[in-house]
Amino acid sequence: MGGDFGPHIIVPAAVQAARQGISIALVGDETKIEAELSQLDTKGLDITIVPASQVVEMEDKPADALRRKKDSSIQVACRYVKDGHADGVVSAGNSGATVACGMFTIGRVKGVQRPALASVLPTEKKPCVLIDVGANVDSKPEHLLQFGLMADVLARYVLGYENPSVGILSIGEEEGKGNATVKEAFELFRNSQLNFIGNAEGRDIFTGDVDVVVCDGFVGNIALKLSEGLASSMNKIMKRELKRSWLSKLGALLSYRAFRRFKKVVDYAEYGGAPLLGLKGIAVVCHGKSSPKAMTNAILVAARYVANQAHAHLATELETHRGLSAGTTDAEKSSAA
Amino acid sequence: MGGDFGPHIIVPAAVQAARQGISIALVGDETKIEAELSQLDTKGLDITIVPASQVVEMEDKPADALRRKKDSSIQVACRYVKDGHADGVVSAGNSGATVACGMFTIGRVKGVQRPALASVLPTEKKPCVLIDVGANVDSKPEHLLQFGLMADVLARYVLGYENPSVGILSIGEEEGKGNATVKEAFELFRNSQLNFIGNAEGRDIFTGDVDVVVCDGFVGNIALKLSEGLASSMNKIMKRELKRSWLSKLGALLSYRAFRRFKKVVDYAEYGGAPLLGLKGIAVVCHGKSSPKAMTNAILVAARYVANQAHAHLATELETHRGLSAGTTDAEKSSAA
Repeated sequence: MGGDFGPHIIVPAAVQAARQGISIALVGDETKIEAELSQLDTKGLDITIVPASQVVEMEDKPADALRRKKDSSIQVACRYVKDGHADGVVSAGNSGATVACGMFTIGRVKGVQRPALASVLPTEKKPCVLIDVGANVDSKPEHLLQFGLMADVLARYVLGYENPSVGILSIGEEEGKGNATVKEAFELFRNSQLNFIGNAEGRDIFTGDVDVVVCDGFVGNIALKLSEGLASSMNKIMKRELKRSWLSKLGALLSYRAFRRFKKVVDYAEYGGAPLLGLKGIAVVCHGKSSPKAMTNAILVAARYVANQAHAHLATELETHRGLSAGTTDAEKSSAA
Repeated sequence: MGGDFGPHIIVPAAVQAARQGISIALVGDETKIEAELSQLDTKGLDITIVPASQVVEMEDKPADALRRKKDSSIQVACRYVKDGHADGVVSAGNSGATVACGMFTIGRVKGVQRPALASVLPTEKKPCVLIDVGANVDSKPEHLLQFGLMADVLARYVLGYENPSVGILSIGEEEGKGNATVKEAFELFRNSQLNFIGNAEGRDIFTGDVDVVVCDGFVGNIALKLSEGLASSMNKIMKRELKRSWLSKLGALLSYRAFRRFKKVVDYAEYGGAPLLGLKGIAVVCHGKSSPKAMTNAILVAARYVANQAHAHLATELETHRGLSAGTTDAEKSSAA
């Protein structure tokens, strides 16, 4: 039911995913969902409708959505995962509510201190995973390490990267650059089994030279929205400049296909939402404005995550690093003493 | 002597500024500076050479530059300001060293807890001031307030904005969104005399709807470098796509002027460096790769700052808000108790 366009976008996207062999449960208002389904060819597809009478609105607070709207589509969907009827949930609705229901209804994998949102960003080369893009603020060094471990699993088992390089987002490449949290996290990452390349700077994300970039959710959310905003503003300014003369208008017309390909490369929506990592299952948070294609991609990401047992690999990787991420960092030891 | 191209770029830029009536002192290697000057028409211009025997290299650490290179061009230039021979300094050299020499050699205005770097960013409408872009990390709420007050002065007296709107960079517009520091800073801003519009999100910077955006230097530096990196990567991807067919190549050729105007609008270098606010005088930190035009603009920014007595206004504004930024925030009170 979520997203700016509701079932009208989500149902066709889900049907498209079902055509690729994925079992789909559509959760929400039965009448509306059936109306959309009736317009599509669904013969032989594995599609179930799971009724839910409520809808979380974009302006609802996550905590309220969790407590008061027990029969909302997102809560019902998360219970459906929790009860073992589905392996994951995909939503274009209220992001905060999806994160909250994911954390509290589906629940965390043992050992995960804080689930984190990963975003798969387009770059000059292959996509880069930025984590956390907003599930947490004021993260501690050991949380950052866990974000890195979880994103490493995503990069390996969903994106198919062999030995993903992992960097910490900071304000200089050298060790010792950054705020107090990053400086402490640097030590933890160095002692981990990750392919840690040190600090990454803001400009390194879009060159595609690093596969996973780790940061606190406050920084990551700002980075993500800033990127979306800048890309959109650059497009607007470019359009404005191209419209100024008939010559450049003609030029733009001739370059139309190139512009379209460009848009596709830089459009984050093509990459299919932000997976919330660390749950017993998977939840993918999509942009409210997601296109049908973006929604289908998000479903495929969730399916690949499940099919490749990323969830089990995540548990193993966290267990291996339990000592490092136990939260007994130097700072805490000394403040305890 | 600083910057990737040294006197070869800086001397012509300074001469250009001198032609607009500004008194210039060129600090560094006399022979090299004279060689550059001899190739330009400097008749009737107010240009002095101040000799300095050392150069801070890009890889030098700020603290070392400060302690060991007492006769470096940046230190000599800052002493020249301190001693009252000049009102401000402009450098394209090692940013950390410029910030350190600015803070410790020129010195802070009374009441300034932490000088901060402001960056003037291009947007869809008029430029936006982002502060702090890297002079500080782990800033406290009262530091953020001071950043806002100082950037307000810059927006009024250098950019000429009448009643600049000021926002705190956060992860949601509503009050209560953000990390612990931002939440506490929100109260301080609300009680200030600033035209405070609440939280601003990453996407609000480039629309041009807010005049001043305040954040910690860790976040701001990442935001700035991310923007530069994304803009550069988008340009590369666009070029790559335009080169794929002769039709789009022709189109690009016809749109050449539009592309050039676009580049000018989105090029941060056009806006002339990042002023370090809060000093007894002004220091402008320029990108190492700055063009002559960017350097000239940086000198003009510094001159406008001085001519409009921004420095005195800054002292007044800080004095007015002394109670708010005294550092006796609730958190500190309770931790002291």
